[in-house]
Amino acid sequence: MIKLTRAYRFSASHRLHAPALSDEENREVYGKCNNPYGHGHNYALEVTVEGPLDADTGRVCNPATLDRLVTQCVLENFDHANLNEQAEEFQSLVPTTENLAIVIDGRLRRAWKSAFEREWPRLGGIRVRETKRNTFEYR
Amino acid sequence: MIKLTRAYRFSASHRLHAPALSDEENREVYGKCNNPYGHGHNYALEVTVEGPLDADTGRVCNPATLDRLVTQCVLENFDHANLNEQAEEFQSLVPTTENLAIVIDGRLRRAWKSAFEREWPRLGGIRVRETKRNTFEYR
Amino acid sequence: MIKLTRAYRFSASHRLHAPALSDEENREVYGKCNNPYGHGHNYALEVTVEGPLDADTGRVCNPATLDRLVTQCVLENFDHANLNEQAEEFQSLVPTTENLAIVIDGRLRRAWKSAFEREWPRLGGIRVRETKRNTFEYR
Amino acid sequence: MIKLTRAYRFSASHRLHAPALSDEENREVYGKCNNPYGHGHNYALEVTVEGPLDADTGRVCNPATLDRLVTQCVLENFDHANLNEQAEEFQSLVPTTENLAIVIDGRLRRAWKSAFEREWPRLGGIRVRETKRNTFEYR
Amino acid sequence: MIKLTRAYRFSASHRLHAPALSDEENREVYGKCNNPYGHGHNYALEVTVEGPLDADTGRVCNPATLDRLVTQCVLENFDHANLNEQAEEFQSLVPTTENLAIVIDGRLRRAWKSAFEREWPRLGGIRVRETKRNTFEYR
Amino acid sequence: MIKLTRAYRFSASHRLHAPALSDEENREVYGKCNNPYGHGHNYALEVTVEGPLDADTGRVCNPATLDRLVTQCVLENFDHANLNEQAEEFQSLVPTTENLAIVIDGRLRRAWKSAFEREWPRLGGIRVRETKRNTFEYR
Repeated sequence: MIKLTRAYRFSASHRLHAPALSDEENREVYGKCNNPYGHGHNYALEVTVEGPLDADTGRVCNPATLDRLVTQCVLENFDHANLNEQAEEFQSLVPTTENLAIVIDGRLRRAWKSAFEREWPRLGGIRVRETKRNTFEYR
Repeated sequence: MIKLTRAYRFSASHRLHAPALSDEENREVYGKCNNPYGHGHNYALEVTVEGPLDADTGRVCNPATLDRLVTQCVLENFDHANLNEQAEEFQSLVPTTENLAIVIDGRLRRAWKSAFEREWPRLGGIRVRETKRNTFEYR
Repeated sequence: MIKLTRAYRFSASHRLHAPALSDEENREVYGKCNNPYGHGHNYALEVTVEGPLDADTGRVCNPATLDRLVTQCVLENFDHANLNEQAEEFQSLVPTTENLAIVIDGRLRRAWKSAFEREWPRLGGIRVRETKRNTFEYR
Repeated sequence: MIKLTRAYRFSASHRLHAPALSDEENREVYGKCNNPYGHGHNYALEVTVEGPLDADTGRVCNPATLDRLVTQCVLENFDHANLNEQAEEFQSLVPTTENLAIVIDGRLRRAWKSAFEREWPRLGGIRVRETKRNTFEYR
Repeated sequence: MIKLTRAYRFSASHRLHAPALSDEENREVYGKCNNPYGHGHNYALEVTVEGPLDADTGRVCNPATLDRLVTQCVLENFDHANLNEQAEEFQSLVPTTENLAIVIDGRLRRAWKSAFEREWPRLGGIRVRETKRNTFEYR
Repeated sequence: MIKLTRAYRFSASHRLHAPALSDEENREVYGKCNNPYGHGHNYALEVTVEGPLDADTGRVCNPATLDRLVTQCVLENFDHANLNEQAEEFQSLVPTTENLAIVIDGRLRRAWKSAFEREWPRLGGIRVRETKRNTFEYR
């Protein structure tokens, strides 16, 4: 069993505001991230794939297949986008990077089988880095 | 003469759209950056200060003075902000990173004298990194 | 369950010398790190916090709470300090980065409950990077 | 139990071509990596060592011992080398970075006991980064 | 006048051997880089473009034009290639990174005019990083 | 003319205290860096060498010669050292990174001729990075 972690990047904007909280609570909880006009980040996404090596090719997965999957499920929708306005999941979810990680994981899992068409490789987990100081991991 | 380059970070959103161009030209010139909902970046700002060393302290400038200046002129306005909506300069300028560099340089130059109160140090130039692939320099 | 890893930095000096060993053994075991005048590093500290998301805020923890905790327990004592002379734990422990990681972990655990006042999030582990070549992990 | 991860670098060339596949399949599976003239990378190797601290020294391992082991088993053979032509394992294995990770792990494990001469530390796992986008982990 | 520095990457292999020198001198001058089987690197290329801003777009150049130029002149020939065998310039030149920088500069200059079709932007210089320790600059 | 920038690292401790200033002024000017017990950094040193290429070797300088020079003049004295106590220049100079850059430049210049034994390459300048936020350049 080998793990491959492959890195992707996308730039997006978001605003953190929870409808369940009052305006004052929102300002307290999210601080500057509650700014009504939004702000943005260069997100770094790491996708970890794990499985046994293919005996012929010596590879855990074909990176072109993984790239196609991540492009279709994540980059085409989120790169150079406004997460609050342009991603359907964030109509009902606050686009914290925690929720962004869960949404990306769900999108990859739903499309995984039809992309790889085999038992292996499996999705080992994902990491989303919002800034140099904050990284979120979901597995 | 020594140069000190000091690094700062801010996260902001923007949309590139030039009023002088048609919608079609805007899409062609700016590509995904023309998305009407905007997107964002983690900007890295490097400010270069140059001058002779102070004979007593062995320093080219007091970093606390520089930090105060950059915080007041740049970070307080641009960090966790929407450049199009919240910076007055971008009411009439497209917030490309080229223009952002020029705006930051101008803000620092106007406040420089009252911050440092001496002939030295001088502002040697600034650099703004928009993504790992694109860095803009103005001097 | 989501993990957030948040990064901090501090600069400190130390000298490695074990009282249980002879001077010659100390020089052999620690090499240049045994230099009686000490030396120093820019330490990078990563604190991993894990837990379920808060249903309202979509966050695993309030980063302001974590920052306050790490500042009080670690940065105020260790940043721009001499670990051998100014940290009580290193009166009886050699300030190797292994021991530094254990000390930081203990300080955070003791203050954790009163900082977060809930069952979650929990401290998932810490990492201390001494130089680009050496990183220590404790969990 | 503490983990130390120590980083090494080597530059090497390789060509990916599986004898079990036809020339067309090789081009399809490996893309540009199948180029008959080869290409190369700056590989980053991270070796993770784990164990309890030595009570006297406060260290999980002597880094000089680990460096000697990695130099003899890996760097002397692979740095500034052509993996296909100069490493015996790749006479029968395709030098994908997956296989390279397994080969390095095997070399370290076989020489580990005679290098450390004790029960601890143990080899916790290795990571090989081929490019900024691809990292392989084996444990 | 603004400078934009845009980053590209390519992975290639090479062998350093000067026909004007004896085998012994080659080994002495180039060390491990003289290995007859070659080795390789992940090269990082930075291209600096300079000029005034376009009054309408607020840009120093269209990054898509620059990307097309660098892809055609550099990446298509050098990425995943063996510089000694597959680049015509290195039939008569030793593929040191110094010479690689001069070759890339020449290729860009010759194609520059037909790519940009205007007086500005101009090529401000290039940098090629061979490893984390060595960067070469030509302007 | 080509420039080669080569990177080196050393870890050292220092304390900033100017004898020409009162204790209170020292605390005000240097802040936490005035801590009487000292602190430390991982310094990154970049040495830029410039000159024409040697027609036979295609190199601007022999990196082994440069490494020997930097090791003898800088690393052997400053790595894992206390700058205030162990470097003669800092008996009379405050070891700010500005002064450190000037001292390193002077040491390299004095030994340059006897190391390279020719007109070229010349020392183009040096940069010393104290932390990720502060870099000092002298030329």
